[in-house]
Amino acid sequence: MTVLLIRNVRPLGGAAVDVLVAQGRIAALGPDLATPADALQEDGGGALLLPGLIEGHAHLDKTTWGGPWYRNAVGPTRMHRIDNERAWRSATGHDAAARSLALARAYLANGTTRMRSHADIDPDIGLAHLRATLRTAALLAPHLEIQVVAFPQSGVVRCPGVAELMDVALAEGAHVVGGIDPCQIDRDPVAQLDALFGLVEKHGKPLDIHLHEPGEMGAFSLDLILERTEALDLRGQVTISHGFCLGMIGATERDALLARMARMDVRIATTAPAASAVPPLAICHAAGVTVYGGNDGIRDSWTPYARPDMLDRAMHIGLRNALRRDDELDVALDCVTVSAAHGCGFADYGLVVGARADLVLVDAETTGQAIVATPVRRLVVAGGEIVARDGALLD
Amino acid sequence: MTVLLIRNVRPLGGAAVDVLVAQGRIAALGPDLATPADALQEDGGGALLLPGLIEGHAHLDKTTWGGPWYRNAVGPTRMHRIDNERAWRSATGHDAAARSLALARAYLANGTTRMRSHADIDPDIGLAHLRATLRTAALLAPHLEIQVVAFPQSGVVRCPGVAELMDVALAEGAHVVGGIDPCQIDRDPVAQLDALFGLVEKHGKPLDIHLHEPGEMGAFSLDLILERTEALDLRGQVTISHGFCLGMIGATERDALLARMARMDVRIATTAPAASAVPPLAICHAAGVTVYGGNDGIRDSWTPYARPDMLDRAMHIGLRNALRRDDELDVALDCVTVSAAHGCGFADYGLVVGARADLVLVDAETTGQAIVATPVRRLVVAGGEIVARDGALLD
Repeated sequence: MTVLLIRNVRPLGGAAVDVLVAQGRIAALGPDLATPADALQEDGGGALLLPGLIEGHAHLDKTTWGGPWYRNAVGPTRMHRIDNERAWRSATGHDAAARSLALARAYLANGTTRMRSHADIDPDIGLAHLRATLRTAALLAPHLEIQVVAFPQSGVVRCPGVAELMDVALAEGAHVVGGIDPCQIDRDPVAQLDALFGLVEKHGKPLDIHLHEPGEMGAFSLDLILERTEALDLRGQVTISHGFCLGMIGATERDALLARMARMDVRIATTAPAASAVPPLAICHAAGVTVYGGNDGIRDSWTPYARPDMLDRAMHIGLRNALRRDDELDVALDCVTVSAAHGCGFADYGLVVGARADLVLVDAETTGQAIVATPVRRLVVAGGEIVARDGALLD
Repeated sequence: MTVLLIRNVRPLGGAAVDVLVAQGRIAALGPDLATPADALQEDGGGALLLPGLIEGHAHLDKTTWGGPWYRNAVGPTRMHRIDNERAWRSATGHDAAARSLALARAYLANGTTRMRSHADIDPDIGLAHLRATLRTAALLAPHLEIQVVAFPQSGVVRCPGVAELMDVALAEGAHVVGGIDPCQIDRDPVAQLDALFGLVEKHGKPLDIHLHEPGEMGAFSLDLILERTEALDLRGQVTISHGFCLGMIGATERDALLARMARMDVRIATTAPAASAVPPLAICHAAGVTVYGGNDGIRDSWTPYARPDMLDRAMHIGLRNALRRDDELDVALDCVTVSAAHGCGFADYGLVVGARADLVLVDAETTGQAIVATPVRRLVVAGGEIVARDGALLD
């Protein structure tokens, strides 16, 4: 495996150092490192050094990335989008394997080296999307580590057979149990949550549940989720994706829920959408709750927006939470780096000796500038190997 | 002046046509145009053709664009930002002439051919920023048309001498009377508004007033503004910038204000900020009120965000208003094209024969894709001349 010495880079905008990479790990990090005989040398040119970026909430299997523009004429509700997607998939023969690979490669070119992606499971496609995403994960495994969530997009209780398909998916290698809106989509929160937590217990895998439900309805579902998390002692094993309700309910109720989440290390994955209430970042942090970022869908039948670029997502997190100061922009960066590693459970992370050598070089004066200018990734090292230069993959 | 024939472009994504430009105007637009003897020919290669983009609310004089990164450590309120900016300007010798020119050129490279920019007037800098912006406007005049607003950033009533400076500015060529938060900043709404409307009457120039004031306070100020607009019969002469209150108050009160605005053709300029209430686009349109887009400040002591790119701003307008469908994305594009021309009073606009030849070519299948992908501007024609290729100005 390559021994790589990168000279003259500024970790998070700090003083310039050299980075030595060996055996896929950061072997040394400091000024004026000695050059091992077999080392490939790379001039960092004073670039800003970031750790590999982390996507905490993707839907690789849904994307049209690399294909023709999807003309969206979908109705206004979430149920319209769910039904439209199933019809569109079956009418067009959407190739989840090819598309997910194309999008994952674009993420990697932009310095994303770890990712959690939800893969649809429903009675129409069964395990096809899940297997397509697992295939993409296997193809990119040495460089981009992808956790695949067995995600019941169309519901569990209302779709007979989906719980059983999820059980098979988890046995086949899906990393995380998914879920969605136990009241609004499944209309039977106890039955859905009992099924999901049953899978969590059976497979010993974490839960990541989409919770779009607004206000008091969402708070009720969250309460039921926390009740089960507490009863089964699933500390650090549960993520609430979206959690819009935490930006809608009264402060007293919200703070009580956040305190319970902090106690059980229940995390929040946010896309920080501009048009919706969101969990307030500063208040979640003050309560001790980990918040990390994700793009959600990118150019699919749900949404035309978003980019496979976690610096861009950090910018949206900053915009949505009115982060202006440089110290605040570092909080946005944390959502797609350190907190995302903790939130998804990616080990050996960071710009420290012994961590997986996932390194991103950009031309920026400061971390804040890297977020708001989203400069082309000058160099991306993933798992110890150079995989991209100037925004393009090498292979 | 150049005669230019652009072959094979798709206006707003429609069927391919040729465009003939002569005397700075669109002379013909249709399939298979004959080639005039003296014409410069340009192959459009099937690119999407957009009209010149319009920035409806900028602050060219404040930007640090092209300079070192501004490290923001400013306090949390608008008054903190106002006071910090004056202190920073005087401590650093901020060069509003050079910076405004650099930023305006970046706008032009991205296909912005018309713009309204607010220029600070206060007791510290007097007319220096206004004159700097007018100088930038004069330098770029053949290509980028800039309206300059005489903008009392620090207030009118609370800053003795500012009304008189604005009077001089308007005599010297400022195009628009500016204003800001009559209650919250000046704490004397009647005195401020009487001074501003006095300038409007004296100079026969339009008013564009920043109204950040929340909820009922903002609605009260808006009521006072509309009262004067109606009394002086200033139909089509008033813009409310921001107008956050319209996204905060009850529907009955909001709709009554919107009906009065529609009657007097009072426009709204929005930046569609993710972290603030905003005038709801679809409801404003249903009421017959023109809404157009602007970036507000770009990389200044107020904010690290934003780009001199009106397709990017259209994307943010789309995100903030939950516009997903392709027909909805066209509404976002309208905010930085047709509605902005109407809102700011830029004549001879659009992709029609006789209009000013301001043309933007991008590689995109549809207008929606142009907004969400913000592709490099392949060609920019401004005032009939090619000014930029592949994102870079030619001079």
